[in-house]
Amino acid sequence: MRYTRVSADGRAVWGRVAEQDIELLSGSPIDGDPSVTGTVPRATATWLPVVVPPVFYAVGMNYRRHIEHARAEMPARPEVGYRANNALTGHGQPIVRPAGVEGRFEAEPELVAVIGRTLRHATQEEARASVFGWTIGNDVSARTWQHQDRTFWRSKNSDTFKPMGPWIETDVDALAQTTTLRVNGEVRVSFATGDMVFDPFDHIVEITRHITMHPGDVLWMGAESTCQLEPGDTVDIEISGIGVLSNPVQGEAPVTERQQQS
Amino acid sequence: MRYTRVSADGRAVWGRVAEQDIELLSGSPIDGDPSVTGTVPRATATWLPVVVPPVFYAVGMNYRRHIEHARAEMPARPEVGYRANNALTGHGQPIVRPAGVEGRFEAEPELVAVIGRTLRHATQEEARASVFGWTIGNDVSARTWQHQDRTFWRSKNSDTFKPMGPWIETDVDALAQTTTLRVNGEVRVSFATGDMVFDPFDHIVEITRHITMHPGDVLWMGAESTCQLEPGDTVDIEISGIGVLSNPVQGEAPVTERQQQS
Repeated sequence: MRYTRVSADGRAVWGRVAEQDIELLSGSPIDGDPSVTGTVPRATATWLPVVVPPVFYAVGMNYRRHIEHARAEMPARPEVGYRANNALTGHGQPIVRPAGVEGRFEAEPELVAVIGRTLRHATQEEARASVFGWTIGNDVSARTWQHQDRTFWRSKNSDTFKPMGPWIETDVDALAQTTTLRVNGEVRVSFATGDMVFDPFDHIVEITRHITMHPGDVLWMGAESTCQLEPGDTVDIEISGIGVLSNPVQGEAPVTERQQQS
Repeated sequence: MRYTRVSADGRAVWGRVAEQDIELLSGSPIDGDPSVTGTVPRATATWLPVVVPPVFYAVGMNYRRHIEHARAEMPARPEVGYRANNALTGHGQPIVRPAGVEGRFEAEPELVAVIGRTLRHATQEEARASVFGWTIGNDVSARTWQHQDRTFWRSKNSDTFKPMGPWIETDVDALAQTTTLRVNGEVRVSFATGDMVFDPFDHIVEITRHITMHPGDVLWMGAESTCQLEPGDTVDIEISGIGVLSNPVQGEAPVTERQQQS
């Protein structure tokens, strides 16, 4: 099954994705078994981030080739960082490159686990059973800021830097898939989705030694490679068996222009 | 006015804090003007974290003496990090020291700004107007983990590591106050709340250059000094003009004991 959230009459509404339409739901499929209340055509839908997580976990260096490329140390155990909900945006929505960003402005194509249960001290088996489904994330990063700043606050969490979607796929062997990133239709990055140092279940077991995970939490699993983005580009991230997350890239109007407009 | 959230009939309910009672409210005072639906006595209330923030911002090094003590560089501009909602707990609830924690396990007494509006590209004046009220946070930290790990995930975000409360005070000049930390009634830390390198409004202006802040977001402002905690202690953080956040400290049962119990 494929679930997502769309904007309907100005409200965020859960939906079940069918061939032509999105069936609007009475509530969250993570929390229960909602009923269908209407439909909107897929073609005209405004897609929202598939969930607004209570906690937004992000794994950093987790693919061997990425770690070797960055000349970083191979992690000895699973660790996580965080991203911020303000940065989330939906399938089809623009990624806005801030006016002050220079140099490398990059996409990172990531598998995302969506948690479906409350869990603490999880076993591997409980960790597997806790994943409600899988989606796709683009961990957009402004590298100059990433290197200048003490934290990732603006380099990875500026508004629109975290597209997530287009839907949550509940029936897929996510680690047996291929991740492909295309810019303007041209393949730029391709890797085996499951070629991780520590997989999502390893991370859930480790996290829940100290932390309670909750329904709707998301765990972004890192990327093997990255790719430069420019205003005017369209970036598609496909994970086979899940779908395609597509976003156009825009440049932010400079502050002086914005001020003159307002 | 003083607002908080309490547990009533198993649900999280907003309340307005009066002399003897907490007046239960029909909704969030941040979003509107709720009506009173009942009361519970303050003495028997179960206090919850005053808000569950969409984004949980935390300032690191921000007091001159803290920076000098840590031999860190004085920040040239405001920057923020993040904490995670799973770690939040309410006034009166236990801080649990995980079984694996050794060495320094410390309280950090912090002023917290609660945001009341949606804002982006805020001026200093808009930043001032955006703060709904002020509360108190305890940025509990396990130093060995903080130094061992790549991120702050378990050192600062383990369950119960972020007490926040007891209420949001809307009518106080927060930067003109004194922060005092007591362990078992004895004063261990005291400093001028407003003696910051960059104040909350400087941070809001800087954050909103790139990020939209939302109603309910919290901004923890850092601490000048820290203090060791042991199981059995009670830690009180008072900010004059706001209130006292009090939490007992417990040791977590070792895993073997937990397994035998379950």
